[in-house]
Amino acid sequence: VTNLILCGGSGTRLWPLSRPEMPKQFYPLFSGRSLFEMTVDRNKDLADHFYVASNLLQMGLATEQMAKCGVADFGSLVEPVGRNTAPAIALACLALVAAGKAEELVLVTPSDHLMTKPADYERAVKRAGELAAQGYLVTFGINPTSPDTGFGYIEAKGENLVSFREKPDLATAKAYLESGRYFWNSGMFVFRAGVFLAELQKHSPEVYRACRAATTVTHEAMMAIPSISIDYAVMEKTTLGKVVACDPGWSDLGSFDALYEDTEPRKDGNRVLSSLPPVFVEARNNLVVGSGRQIALIDVEGLIVVDTADALLITKRGSTQKVKHVVSLLKPVL
Amino acid sequence: VTNLILCGGSGTRLWPLSRPEMPKQFYPLFSGRSLFEMTVDRNKDLADHFYVASNLLQMGLATEQMAKCGVADFGSLVEPVGRNTAPAIALACLALVAAGKAEELVLVTPSDHLMTKPADYERAVKRAGELAAQGYLVTFGINPTSPDTGFGYIEAKGENLVSFREKPDLATAKAYLESGRYFWNSGMFVFRAGVFLAELQKHSPEVYRACRAATTVTHEAMMAIPSISIDYAVMEKTTLGKVVACDPGWSDLGSFDALYEDTEPRKDGNRVLSSLPPVFVEARNNLVVGSGRQIALIDVEGLIVVDTADALLITKRGSTQKVKHVVSLLKPVL
Repeated sequence: VTNLILCGGSGTRLWPLSRPEMPKQFYPLFSGRSLFEMTVDRNKDLADHFYVASNLLQMGLATEQMAKCGVADFGSLVEPVGRNTAPAIALACLALVAAGKAEELVLVTPSDHLMTKPADYERAVKRAGELAAQGYLVTFGINPTSPDTGFGYIEAKGENLVSFREKPDLATAKAYLESGRYFWNSGMFVFRAGVFLAELQKHSPEVYRACRAATTVTHEAMMAIPSISIDYAVMEKTTLGKVVACDPGWSDLGSFDALYEDTEPRKDGNRVLSSLPPVFVEARNNLVVGSGRQIALIDVEGLIVVDTADALLITKRGSTQKVKHVVSLLKPVL
Repeated sequence: VTNLILCGGSGTRLWPLSRPEMPKQFYPLFSGRSLFEMTVDRNKDLADHFYVASNLLQMGLATEQMAKCGVADFGSLVEPVGRNTAPAIALACLALVAAGKAEELVLVTPSDHLMTKPADYERAVKRAGELAAQGYLVTFGINPTSPDTGFGYIEAKGENLVSFREKPDLATAKAYLESGRYFWNSGMFVFRAGVFLAELQKHSPEVYRACRAATTVTHEAMMAIPSISIDYAVMEKTTLGKVVACDPGWSDLGSFDALYEDTEPRKDGNRVLSSLPPVFVEARNNLVVGSGRQIALIDVEGLIVVDTADALLITKRGSTQKVKHVVSLLKPVL
């Protein structure tokens, strides 16, 4: 098994944690560990090799943090420009095939997800591996806990993949949740390298051809590859799709409100991600993400405070989608 | 005229701006200037000499900031231990008398007050100087703008000092305000050095004797001096008291709520004391005291945010008197 870790762009929804030069997945957020490191740790016993697809800057951070996790050797695809998930996965699979590993099971995972129930994750990956070994393309369906309109959904019938659904409106999401047949699309997959490439060739031949043509991954060769997700290029069209439902305590940490939900409350309802505990004086139900400075909160409730070395965000809970406005206002100076 | 600047203890009410090693009066809060520097600037044209009474640590900061204000030479009294205002003033006056300057007019000022109306301050100091030259002990009565229970009051009849009053309860403070005969006690004075010492000898002979005995200001000699304020030791007892009423836009910055009131609002109601302007996204009526990091506020109202190099305070407006609880909770680690 090879764990292909995709390190994508640098989201702005978690500013000031996430920056172009230091995306959220590399930030030492959880007892000094980053989401990237937690991803490596989580998959270390499930995979024999690692392969990282990323840009040059993030590859530097990935190499450092791989070393911290005790992984000295890993394959890498440095993308001069991102072309979404299908090309990144295809280029990695092509490299495996070229190395005589067409049968290799590839576990594709993002680098920026949180899982609080590792046992169920392990179970699901093992089951997905069994199905992938039989020639299927396996995706993971996260049991939805709310009618979230921020995720794509996967429709399943047993372990069979029925369809992929775009982000729904609230009414549709509620119907999905009630039906019990829909799962959140986590962006994780398992398949044999050769099987994936064959399906890509079949369903998106132009993507396959352009990836084959990129024998050296130059900017020009990458730009010739259509920018397309694995969902559109393969998973929505394949007849070999399977779904493993799971409940791994998953979060994509898409906002600070999500981070709030994914952080255990203390007795006073405050939630803390910091090496130095804040002082709370009659302050309740706040999330404090700290960088080691002494922080004190007095008589405030429902705030999210994110303190980094060079920037500070204070927002009301429930308003964290407005973080992108801050980033757009700051862009000229950042 | 000698301006005697008293640099007292290090208040905890403005943590994290005010620290034992960096009291609030030395913090570059107002367009990069500290209250100490503003005090020196304010008095530079009114006084011929400066004299600073302080502890060793603050004397270092005072010397640095005096130089920034273009004052190379000033007298100094380094107190090994603070004994309140009467001994500090007495020791400074004794030094002046020893230098043959018994007639010197001494303008006693704190170092941590803000004055937004310098013209009225100048007028009041000049009038106080005239009265002091006639042998009076002159204090400044700040026209009260509210029935504040946090200040001592001075009762006056015209320019005559009638009595000093301790911090009143609210009903008493309201009666004071209505009567028009009561003023806030600002802790500023003007008198001749020799006149002050004569009145101290008359009304608090034991303080006078102990100060005289402290020919070198050792810890032991200081501890032998009663710890007593000029109000108790002299001003409440003297028959030579005068009051100059004034309205110099005065604030003692006793809390962050006071600092909020003393800072001009922007159009959105936010108030900012920072070299780097914060980003406000639907945030109103907050005070942000910054240290140069990028700060962003989203959807919050009525907060006071104080950001320093190594600590961050976030408090609701109106709750800033609880800052002392933070300090007491932090004491073991600070």
